[in-house]
Amino acid sequence: MTAKKEQQDSAVDAPFLIELVKTLRAQDTNGSWEGKSDLDLLEPYILNKEKRRTLPIIGGPDPNTLRRLELFFEAVTRSIERETGVIIQPLLKLHAGGFGRIVLIAGRLIAVNKQLRDVHRFGFDNCVKLAQEGDKYVSEGISLIRKFPNVVNY
Amino acid sequence: MTAKKEQQDSAVDAPFLIELVKTLRAQDTNGSWEGKSDLDLLEPYILNKEKRRTLPIIGGPDPNTLRRLELFFEAVTRSIERETGVIIQPLLKLHAGGFGRIVLIAGRLIAVNKQLRDVHRFGFDNCVKLAQEGDKYVSEGISLIRKFPNVVNY
Repeated sequence: MTAKKEQQDSAVDAPFLIELVKTLRAQDTNGSWEGKSDLDLLEPYILNKEKRRTLPIIGGPDPNTLRRLELFFEAVTRSIERETGVIIQPLLKLHAGGFGRIVLIAGRLIAVNKQLRDVHRFGFDNCVKLAQEGDKYVSEGISLIRKFPNVVNY
Repeated sequence: MTAKKEQQDSAVDAPFLIELVKTLRAQDTNGSWEGKSDLDLLEPYILNKEKRRTLPIIGGPDPNTLRRLELFFEAVTRSIERETGVIIQPLLKLHAGGFGRIVLIAGRLIAVNKQLRDVHRFGFDNCVKLAQEGDKYVSEGISLIRKFPNVVNY
């Protein structure tokens, strides 16, 4: 096992990243990503500050970026569902200029709420940040669902 | 006062219809509807069964229909806000084929939740039905907000 391979394995040890990779692989219905490593799949999520700044924020966000955003929150959704056993429905609404809002709904509760801006530049400095951000939403959702079960089951 | 005028006045006595007319008139920034009666403004909301059946449900809904749907729920939003003092944010998401969902959000609570279908044919048999349907959402929203204040203020 090479040093590079070891690094890759450790990078996707984080539960949220494992869920995200699973979500991404589920999109690959014709098996064209089989040769890709988990890190290869996560790579488009990584945008450092310089890279981000070069992305134009004129017009609507790139469809691939939008899809990445949706799959990120789908992984959040699945992680919360797995932990709580509650069914979650995401609702994403984008306005002009890369602004918008996404909510993850559990019954009558908004388990996760995120105002979006600069969707064109959706990305993370590195895999650790990606995992942390995902975990943040997952924990928030789980904790709110446990706090207000009567709203979830209303 | 003519019989027709009297009938009009009584038709928009319902609090929800008054709010809806107010919402509609607020769109008329250049005053071109000043000559229109309240009932004239509400008229596009009235679709009896036969009229509804003739509307094609192929492709996306007509933009005017969509706008009417949004303004209907804006009137619901304003009515709930007026009664509860809580700020409500509507979130409308439409999918292909006239399906979708609208939620009215108060803090972390979904005060009103409506799955949409056949948006192409959004309309009501008559003004009474229109007022009743509006009132139904308003009451639902108010009652849920009063039931779960800690979720609203979370």
